Amino acid sequence: MRGVVMYAPGDVRVEDREKPTILEPTDAIIRAAAVCVCGSDLWPYRGIEKLAGPTPMGHEYVGVVDEVGADVRNVEVGDFVVGSFVASDNTCEICQAGYQSRCVHNVMMGSVGTQAELIRVPLADGTLVPTPGMPDADLIPSLLAASDVLGTGWFAAVAAEAGPGKTVAVVGDGAVGLSAILAAKQLGAERVIAMSRHADRQALAREFGATDLVEERGDAGIAKIKELTNGLGAHSVVEAVGTQESMEQAIGSTRPGGHIGYVGVTHDVKLDGLDLFFSGVHLHGGPAPVRRFLPELIQLIWDRKIEPGKVFDLTLPLEDAAKAYRAMDERSATKVLLTV
Amino acid sequence: MRGVVMYAPGDVRVEDREKPTILEPTDAIIRAAAVCVCGSDLWPYRGIEKLAGPTPMGHEYVGVVDEVGADVRNVEVGDFVVGSFVASDNTCEICQAGYQSRCVHNVMMGSVGTQAELIRVPLADGTLVPTPGMPDADLIPSLLAASDVLGTGWFAAVAAEAGPGKTVAVVGDGAVGLSAILAAKQLGAERVIAMSRHADRQALAREFGATDLVEERGDAGIAKIKELTNGLGAHSVVEAVGTQESMEQAIGSTRPGGHIGYVGVTHDVKLDGLDLFFSGVHLHGGPAPVRRFLPELIQLIWDRKIEPGKVFDLTLPLEDAAKAYRAMDERSATKVLLTV
Repeated sequence: MRGVVMYAPGDVRVEDREKPTILEPTDAIIRAAAVCVCGSDLWPYRGIEKLAGPTPMGHEYVGVVDEVGADVRNVEVGDFVVGSFVASDNTCEICQAGYQSRCVHNVMMGSVGTQAELIRVPLADGTLVPTPGMPDADLIPSLLAASDVLGTGWFAAVAAEAGPGKTVAVVGDGAVGLSAILAAKQLGAERVIAMSRHADRQALAREFGATDLVEERGDAGIAKIKELTNGLGAHSVVEAVGTQESMEQAIGSTRPGGHIGYVGVTHDVKLDGLDLFFSGVHLHGGPAPVRRFLPELIQLIWDRKIEPGKVFDLTLPLEDAAKAYRAMDERSATKVLLTV
Repeated sequence: MRGVVMYAPGDVRVEDREKPTILEPTDAIIRAAAVCVCGSDLWPYRGIEKLAGPTPMGHEYVGVVDEVGADVRNVEVGDFVVGSFVASDNTCEICQAGYQSRCVHNVMMGSVGTQAELIRVPLADGTLVPTPGMPDADLIPSLLAASDVLGTGWFAAVAAEAGPGKTVAVVGDGAVGLSAILAAKQLGAERVIAMSRHADRQALAREFGATDLVEERGDAGIAKIKELTNGLGAHSVVEAVGTQESMEQAIGSTRPGGHIGYVGVTHDVKLDGLDLFFSGVHLHGGPAPVRRFLPELIQLIWDRKIEPGKVFDLTLPLEDAAKAYRAMDERSATKVLLTV
């Protein structure tokens, strides 16, 4: 079967890979309908994360169950399913508390490499959520978004305690930040401030529910948020970038006692203890437990109440994966969907 | 009037200071019944925080209202009152959200210097909470503890979401850590693990409600907490020290999705972004909004349901303040009460 392999920074190839098989009785094999490229796939592409050798890529996926192991009960061959970027049993104490991304038996789907025709999904019963039926083609991008960026943005908005009466600021206008805007709006936030300086992303932010736009960054961005919030800072701030500057911008934009949901993978970030102490904020984040939210998100998509698939601004066939990586690296695309 | 002044690291004197007067119509003057020395007073005493010059010291106090400004409505001359280490109006949006230590009009009582016979308290209506009557002498240490260490430990336990069914670990066995143990117990925690290696503090920890003791620190301490929690880590961790090691110990001891309440002032601490990200914990802390909890704490003390005053293991007259600082610096005392 065909699948994406990264050989070195900037060197992405689509080639014949071995067809996956059931290894554990709790595995399922799914035939991908669509997969995509994640912002985090750009870390090795840019040489910031090291590759041990040629590496199958990808961790987002939707598709149809092709084969199940002997112990699989919750999904059947032929089901259309959505999974998250972490396989989880959904039964351990950590999963039951809503942190499936840290399941005691978790398997990172990035280690499987989902940018391929066929995907082995471990812990299928805990990981995969079937849709109510076979989706119309136009729903597939949104269901795929639920697999990672929407689920991650949603978690960030929940971690930031977005809700009625709240002013929510979102740092980062990538697919996750935009999804967090959609989530904040759905969660009932009174005001959603998008921090963005790209016209196309600003337009989607507005469409997803942003009530205000702030183009400034750093201290100027913080000053602007304070100006918009009676000098106090936002109640809730989503951080969806993961740099030193963006984390400091998020902390500085939050009022004392406010909440930050951070989901940008924090590379080379050091938080100053005293600054954090005196900020008085709540800080929560990490790899999003997307599985917690999947049933709710799938239903919202199924009922056409949200259309998170709009974050995909380029669609290419799997064979053109190299072009997809290049487009995201060069920022000519926010998020690329690969049809399989 | 007599009051404590620090001239230089290690140089604490009791001398005649100018009698405070009402400066604003919202001020009150109180005649101190008891004051005390805080762990944070040791930072300048040890030369870690710089002094600009001779500095009146102290920020904890209980006493009797001696005089009130023209606009004061909630307390009267003759009331016995407890205040926190931050004066707050208790009416602004931040106060109303429960973060009185970050009131938009806050005044740090350390800038007043409460280790004295008479104390000017700004924003008296918002800051001071009267007791139900004149307290018996044996209640005074506990009421004084409410002014800072109990209120801070209580906030930390609340921030760590200590409660029924929870396993709570407490890093730090000073007066605040011990108070957090008392708080966790009162809040209904199922299990309270004190991380302490001092026999006398272990004994008080047990008396306050600790169910387990861990003497190990750092990675060994983390391993022990995991051993006691089915490999997962505690649900709730209180950090009451403020060093790099103690923060890392707290983060490492918390399960994914768990909560850390940190109240040790984090000097020279840098939190690694990736470690924090992958820990998946909730982090909340800062200067405790003690005022939020004062009515409840005063009632618990008044009804003799808790006796937080046991954290004072040395009582001296105000005139012996230098001896009090020395005892805490040398760790021959955990917390010293100064009678006035």
